[in-house]
Amino acid sequence: MHAKLQRRQALTDARRSLVLDAARAVFLEAGIEGASVREIARRAGYTPGAIYSYFESKEAIYAALLDESIQRLQSAVADAPVARDGPGQALAARAQAWFDFYAANPRELDLGFYLVQGMRPRGLTSELDHELNDHLYQALRPCEEALQEMGLDADAALRENTALFAHGVGLLLMQHTGRIRMFRQSADALFKAYVAQLVQRVDGGSRQPGLFGGTVQPDSTDT
Amino acid sequence: MHAKLQRRQALTDARRSLVLDAARAVFLEAGIEGASVREIARRAGYTPGAIYSYFESKEAIYAALLDESIQRLQSAVADAPVARDGPGQALAARAQAWFDFYAANPRELDLGFYLVQGMRPRGLTSELDHELNDHLYQALRPCEEALQEMGLDADAALRENTALFAHGVGLLLMQHTGRIRMFRQSADALFKAYVAQLVQRVDGGSRQPGLFGGTVQPDSTDT
Repeated sequence: MHAKLQRRQALTDARRSLVLDAARAVFLEAGIEGASVREIARRAGYTPGAIYSYFESKEAIYAALLDESIQRLQSAVADAPVARDGPGQALAARAQAWFDFYAANPRELDLGFYLVQGMRPRGLTSELDHELNDHLYQALRPCEEALQEMGLDADAALRENTALFAHGVGLLLMQHTGRIRMFRQSADALFKAYVAQLVQRVDGGSRQPGLFGGTVQPDSTDT
Repeated sequence: MHAKLQRRQALTDARRSLVLDAARAVFLEAGIEGASVREIARRAGYTPGAIYSYFESKEAIYAALLDESIQRLQSAVADAPVARDGPGQALAARAQAWFDFYAANPRELDLGFYLVQGMRPRGLTSELDHELNDHLYQALRPCEEALQEMGLDADAALRENTALFAHGVGLLLMQHTGRIRMFRQSADALFKAYVAQLVQRVDGGSRQPGLFGGTVQPDSTDT
């Protein structure tokens, strides 16, 4: 690339990043509905017109913010230390990576679950929402792969990975809101215990097929 | 009680309930910070002064709303059909009761976890927050008691009950936000599977002491 083009790209990236930082603050303060491109522009030191040259709408800014957050999550999981002592340890390392990412960045979890305004996906087109869901799914894939390496079939690995994610997200929610204090427990310790049990259960299951096979089977679908 | 006093009390209750209904709508739309007593009064058809004769502040209204919600949760858990076939089934019935309550009333979960404005307890005095935490803890106590009846000691029962609540809340969060769809799973089916496994694990554990005893032990406390 020409030096001039490179410089231009670097400037574009920097401006985009400034806009996203301003947007993050506005969304967390005002919610998705309460946020405006005008206010985001004001914080970033741009005119609304300048913002529209980078993003076509407020929703597009929100989606870009969330996508960037999921990319960081994906890197955290992908970069988790490779365990040489088996897929159980690989699973534990990768699961701990996403848990730690959200434990250290509670506002990313707010954004990722639309908690800036109640638990309702708002404003995103279903296409954008689908794309974000897919990226989050991909970010968590390494855990599912580890579960398959431990001997689970594809369906069981997906179910266990969903349950694992739900467990961690529930613990993080209780920690971030202080609700965990009413139980006098540690979210991190409970998460580690869940993962250890999962590893034990799946390893035991693969040695004794069918022992737990019937218990994770969904018996209905949500409406 | 005199008929006149009774009538007066009934009117007071009805007015209070009108105010709480209006407040619920305002909090869910505007968040805790964005809500105002003036707006709540407008929706309820009162003057702000009239509201202050029932509640001393916006935060007091929020706390009353949340407390009322937790009371309904408590009734749901307490009224779960009494299982005659052992504490494992009693646990399953009571756990399913709070899960169903929040599955049917997602906005109550929003309120209960302050999700109307990111996962941050805001505006409540620590005394009020402590009191609400205590009421929520009491609402979930029947599950803990069932775990003890199944043979767990008090510490282990508290840990398992915390993990159970986290698991369900995580699944509900994924269901309410539509995130569960990316995994193509059913929150209800996964919750039932978790409870079934818990029952199996604790029943198995009480027959073979120590088998899983070491895996739920917290090894640290949150900061």
